[in-house]
Amino acid sequence: MYVLDTVPETKYYSFEALELDCGRTLSPVTIAYETYGRLNAARDNAILLLHALSGSAHAGFLSAEGERGWWYDFIGPARALDTDRYFVICSNVLGGCSGSTGPGSVDPSTGRPYALSFPVITVGDMVRAQKHLVDSLGIRTIKAVVGGSIGGLQALQWTVDYPHAVRSAVILAAANRLSAQGIAFNEVGRQAIMADPFWQEGDYYGGNAPRAGLALARMIGHITYLSEESMHEKFGRALKGVAGYRYEFSEDFEVESYLHHKGNKFVERFDANSYLYITKAMDYFDLPDLSNIKSKMLIISFSSDWLFPPAQSKALVRTLRRNRKDVTYCDVLSSRGHDAFLLEVAPLTELLSGFLDNVSGQR
Amino acid sequence: MYVLDTVPETKYYSFEALELDCGRTLSPVTIAYETYGRLNAARDNAILLLHALSGSAHAGFLSAEGERGWWYDFIGPARALDTDRYFVICSNVLGGCSGSTGPGSVDPSTGRPYALSFPVITVGDMVRAQKHLVDSLGIRTIKAVVGGSIGGLQALQWTVDYPHAVRSAVILAAANRLSAQGIAFNEVGRQAIMADPFWQEGDYYGGNAPRAGLALARMIGHITYLSEESMHEKFGRALKGVAGYRYEFSEDFEVESYLHHKGNKFVERFDANSYLYITKAMDYFDLPDLSNIKSKMLIISFSSDWLFPPAQSKALVRTLRRNRKDVTYCDVLSSRGHDAFLLEVAPLTELLSGFLDNVSGQR
Repeated sequence: MYVLDTVPETKYYSFEALELDCGRTLSPVTIAYETYGRLNAARDNAILLLHALSGSAHAGFLSAEGERGWWYDFIGPARALDTDRYFVICSNVLGGCSGSTGPGSVDPSTGRPYALSFPVITVGDMVRAQKHLVDSLGIRTIKAVVGGSIGGLQALQWTVDYPHAVRSAVILAAANRLSAQGIAFNEVGRQAIMADPFWQEGDYYGGNAPRAGLALARMIGHITYLSEESMHEKFGRALKGVAGYRYEFSEDFEVESYLHHKGNKFVERFDANSYLYITKAMDYFDLPDLSNIKSKMLIISFSSDWLFPPAQSKALVRTLRRNRKDVTYCDVLSSRGHDAFLLEVAPLTELLSGFLDNVSGQR
Repeated sequence: MYVLDTVPETKYYSFEALELDCGRTLSPVTIAYETYGRLNAARDNAILLLHALSGSAHAGFLSAEGERGWWYDFIGPARALDTDRYFVICSNVLGGCSGSTGPGSVDPSTGRPYALSFPVITVGDMVRAQKHLVDSLGIRTIKAVVGGSIGGLQALQWTVDYPHAVRSAVILAAANRLSAQGIAFNEVGRQAIMADPFWQEGDYYGGNAPRAGLALARMIGHITYLSEESMHEKFGRALKGVAGYRYEFSEDFEVESYLHHKGNKFVERFDANSYLYITKAMDYFDLPDLSNIKSKMLIISFSSDWLFPPAQSKALVRTLRRNRKDVTYCDVLSSRGHDAFLLEVAPLTELLSGFLDNVSGQR
């Protein structure tokens, strides 16, 4: 039996250069990653897991500091991504701030952090960087790419850009383009950061970071990750530890306190410029042509998700069906909004296990 | 026939003092208002129209500067609020910045603007101030109170606080309490303002106003006023006058440009502190007990409104029915989101005309 207390080690893969969609070249590039389970002799049991906006390579198990991975409940023996059977890889996204090359990395040509001189990247660029990593591990065919939210966008991009390298894809709480409303929310988040006087046109490294702006962007984001229903269930109109209204501009309600807490926690671990770059990559994401996909697809939406609502997943499924792709779709009944892809462990475990079993048997 | 080119004059009514829900007294108080049509001899044809967050007393006709009122299409001869028959009153809300006493008004005890020393007000306080105005006009019974969004909250408050003074109420795109999600959106808007270095703890009068913060708050607000569907119809993923992505942090998409435009226009006419006070009053709004309402009620929701979704209007209707109130409910099919109460002229004109006719015949 696999020993669960194995502490995953964050590893780094560096390569010379990456051609970007904007026409520029990034050089060198480092990708931080973790792996769980063992690559088999045939090298055909790899699952590439792709994180969402604020995630990192630390997806599973406990870190050396005892921190749970962002998909802890889904990774391990007999879990959705069964580490007795599969070799799970999760890397920090290009443009991120948890070990992979991003705007906070040092530009070798100046010896200083890139800041806003970092090129504007796309989901395609992120995936191209991941392909370098996967190649470096000697893996020619990935059993499944799996991701939620912007991780789902990356998973879909994989199936379009590398149809022969991806046997299946699980796309949770995503779509094949970002909606106008999604762009709008991203833009107000970016404006919150860029309006912070500490942002300094992005050139704040070594000084005060734009904490208030980043916290505000995160607060806005968190509203879109919950549903109206789950906010009502979690907080309703409950007041924060007082008998009545304060009649001042401090936190009156639990929901305000929750958002402030989430915002303030986020700035401890995230770089504001990475927030700008990753949200911009989301905005640019638009894959109308799905004709060359060869992977077996599992599309999952969540009934109360209004950031990537079921209607958008259904439109994706219709496009795939029109192109005669092998696609399974499930709308998971959940009150937990967009965050459901992190929280609905039981139904997702069932869906993923069954789907991955079928992929195993297929080729 | 009534002459449509009549330019409404903004009038001001001042009174000595207003007791507030917070326990403080505001003194003196001025309320700016406009009227359209004529008060009849019986003084029983008055309709009190209540504006939303960013509205003003200028609801109908053209101003001296040629500006249309915020409900222009609904006010005039043979319109929903027929000025050949009704005397329409619209006042700027207490705490506002278009003529009524608010945080930008001079505090007579210091000779300087109140700024944050202005008391935190409630929807009940706003309504109490309106009652002073209505009394001053010699009107003992209002034919109808009519309002959308926070105007609808005020209309409902009227029916609860002054059951014998209100024969009917039309409540559009509102509810009997603000949801956790509504509070959350208001709080991020306030945080955007308060994080602006020009906000200066509210003490910016005579200097630079927190324009960027207020514009951002307005941008956030505008996302909630539209529906995902209407954003898709209006903008989709259309780019702003360029052939491709810019690969920089400027406006790429039409939807971004729209939000920036709306934000920048707003700061020309609105005071940031008023935004804080009015949104806080919304947050505090919660009327669970509707038992003493005597007015005939018309509740209208809009199918794509997600700020005050139909489900909340239906919950209000159920509460009213449980209390055996005279209530009519209509969910208007519209893709225009919360803003539909300003835009869906034809169905609303039909609904309001019919409803007001019935009120006429009743007593």
